[in-house]
Amino acid sequence: MDDRTYTADAEPGDHVTVAGWVHEVRDLGGIAFLILRDKSGKIQVKFEKDEMPEELVETGLGVHRESVISVTGDVEEEERAPTGVEMLPESVDVLNEADAELPLDPSGKVDADLSTRLDNRTLDLRKKEVQAIFEIRAEILRAVREYFRSIGSTEINTPKIVATGTEGGTELFPITYFGEEAFMNQSPQLFKQLMVGSGLERVFEVGPIFRAEEHNTPRHLNEATMIDFESAFIDHEGAMDVCEGTLKAAYEAVEENCADELELLGYDDFGVPEGDFPRLTYEEAIERINATGELDEQLVYGDDLSTEAERALGDDVGGHYFITDWPSEIKPFYIQDYEDDPDTSKGFDLMHPRMELVSGGQREHRYDALVEGFRQQGLDPDQFDYYTKMFKYGMPPHSGWAYGVERLVMTMLGLENIREAVLFPRDRQRLSP
Amino acid sequence: MDDRTYTADAEPGDHVTVAGWVHEVRDLGGIAFLILRDKSGKIQVKFEKDEMPEELVETGLGVHRESVISVTGDVEEEERAPTGVEMLPESVDVLNEADAELPLDPSGKVDADLSTRLDNRTLDLRKKEVQAIFEIRAEILRAVREYFRSIGSTEINTPKIVATGTEGGTELFPITYFGEEAFMNQSPQLFKQLMVGSGLERVFEVGPIFRAEEHNTPRHLNEATMIDFESAFIDHEGAMDVCEGTLKAAYEAVEENCADELELLGYDDFGVPEGDFPRLTYEEAIERINATGELDEQLVYGDDLSTEAERALGDDVGGHYFITDWPSEIKPFYIQDYEDDPDTSKGFDLMHPRMELVSGGQREHRYDALVEGFRQQGLDPDQFDYYTKMFKYGMPPHSGWAYGVERLVMTMLGLENIREAVLFPRDRQRLSP
Repeated sequence: MDDRTYTADAEPGDHVTVAGWVHEVRDLGGIAFLILRDKSGKIQVKFEKDEMPEELVETGLGVHRESVISVTGDVEEEERAPTGVEMLPESVDVLNEADAELPLDPSGKVDADLSTRLDNRTLDLRKKEVQAIFEIRAEILRAVREYFRSIGSTEINTPKIVATGTEGGTELFPITYFGEEAFMNQSPQLFKQLMVGSGLERVFEVGPIFRAEEHNTPRHLNEATMIDFESAFIDHEGAMDVCEGTLKAAYEAVEENCADELELLGYDDFGVPEGDFPRLTYEEAIERINATGELDEQLVYGDDLSTEAERALGDDVGGHYFITDWPSEIKPFYIQDYEDDPDTSKGFDLMHPRMELVSGGQREHRYDALVEGFRQQGLDPDQFDYYTKMFKYGMPPHSGWAYGVERLVMTMLGLENIREAVLFPRDRQRLSP
Repeated sequence: MDDRTYTADAEPGDHVTVAGWVHEVRDLGGIAFLILRDKSGKIQVKFEKDEMPEELVETGLGVHRESVISVTGDVEEEERAPTGVEMLPESVDVLNEADAELPLDPSGKVDADLSTRLDNRTLDLRKKEVQAIFEIRAEILRAVREYFRSIGSTEINTPKIVATGTEGGTELFPITYFGEEAFMNQSPQLFKQLMVGSGLERVFEVGPIFRAEEHNTPRHLNEATMIDFESAFIDHEGAMDVCEGTLKAAYEAVEENCADELELLGYDDFGVPEGDFPRLTYEEAIERINATGELDEQLVYGDDLSTEAERALGDDVGGHYFITDWPSEIKPFYIQDYEDDPDTSKGFDLMHPRMELVSGGQREHRYDALVEGFRQQGLDPDQFDYYTKMFKYGMPPHSGWAYGVERLVMTMLGLENIREAVLFPRDRQRLSP
């Protein structure tokens, strides 16, 4: 398929063709070095001006930085070369000549602001540190899917064009669909629930979600990639087990399979979360927050947790933790309440010390209670008839959750801005590239 | 996480709790059988009316079909039971009572038209044959991703909200994005190309695409799940190798891991494609089609292939095959032409005897030729500046392709309608559920 040799695989004694980008040219007079970069690493190509054909030397040394070339020649041991080997070129092909002026320096020597980097993601991703983030992101997705399959969960794809939103119409992007009004889906919530009532019972989806929120912060996106899980016959405790399982599986896989990337990003000691994640009730959480003394005003039961409150508790706990048993009134209507305590819901959040990662819970599976929930939310249950009616035909008790891949990458790698964790972010200002 | 035992795991001598749907109740007078169904299979529960508590018998036999119940009791060997075991219930819990009237019979004894089935997908997917399609679909996705990783390809997610479409504005769904006009993306084409020019070099994506085509046929969808691949430093021949590799990997994985599902669907001998897929040039293809004598009118060079032409050739070849070397004028502008034959493109299609599966090719990576291509297509290159400008900064030669998961499932399983291969289809008439 691919005839070239990766630079990292070029061994002394080999005669190879390598191809990649011109990372740097250092002309020392009689000899000059061209550093060729590809996905696997870099290799030094030595040009001996007096001993090699003039045309070869001119071609090799005449190209601009970041041009794409292929080089054929012998590989030799060379202690002084950065990788211990160098190539003696027999032929050089210029596959694509780059402009002399670049909008961004892929060597990373010149700093660029995030906006310039995002405008030029192709060049930005030639920096190994940036590439490493996306290799890790891909590994997280692989590991999470593998974990889901290990517990008998079936991958599904649900529609992104929908007639109605999950939680009403305020944060939806409208579409024109063959003359009808439709929306881009903000969550697979309703569809994955429909599937736990089917023969599949336990499902997951990795896919895009769209939220027309007017937030413009370092941790919000208007399009994100969501990992959704839902299972029949488990309660919120069981759903938390799976949630914790996927998260640990992701950390473990990254530690095991992304050692080079972690080293590039400066992790000497990448911490896989150990032990069971503490499960604090909402009441315990507000008590602990109040006890930290970090907030100007004490929290009272019923308050939602502000960013400052989350931070204070995160510092106090020092690792991932769950908050359970939320007051029903601050959780979505499709979360079930305790039978013996209808003011307390079986909803939960998984928290990273820096921010909320996951929202989940046991769902309301009883038709009458669900329809009543829609009404209390000010939504018209008739509009959601395609969903609610299935609750009349044998809907099992079920629980689930969702987390955004970007927040997981962001917290795992300590990124300052969520836009670092997505190739082409979408926010209020950014619709292109 | 899940305390119940799957019915398939219940062994004689066990004391278990099973949970699932009431598949059937057969009352024989003194004794009655309730067949309980879950994801793993079915189990017979025997009620001995005179020997068991009245309340237990009434609860167990009083529920409507498709209600969700859990049953606790001993498992015993029983030759006459369908699975060779039966349960003697000690307790029965009704977890969710179903209505007496169902809009669809999940036992499959009463036929339903496709539209009714799609309106009631939850019930439809309680049929094992329907469930099997989606278990196979999930296995295909797993196998294809694994193949991609085995060749060093990195998973990416690209935006679905875009400022401009891949091939112009005619088949795009418009969105209102914070007051600006935007579109739902019809293909990751431009974004995946931007990524092969980055340090990632070789990428894949599995995600939704949106096409506002007015087709309403058994093989078109307005929202589909696409498998996209793109790699630097390979030509169209290399891209075909990968394409063939993923397809065979999918068939092999299904054969190996979905034996039960294939049996349910009636495959005695599921055929994994063997040998190399023939690669016919477009010229050879039209010659062979003409030679079949199946068409009323002979094809001439430059004609696109009609559905009838594809069928005639498919019958003649008898398996998967590629068509290569298409006339440049009937392939998209971003496909590269042969340097020594500019009227012939390096585009290819992968064909199943029933229909086209894949479209791909080597791409135009030279800035000037690409911009000229936009112009010839009647598109304004300035609108695609975010994409084209990256071709000035070192874009390697590259090739790729895309196929829809639904068409792969459809052709693999011989489904008559593509809507059978997607949980919640979107077409001109269908926007819900």
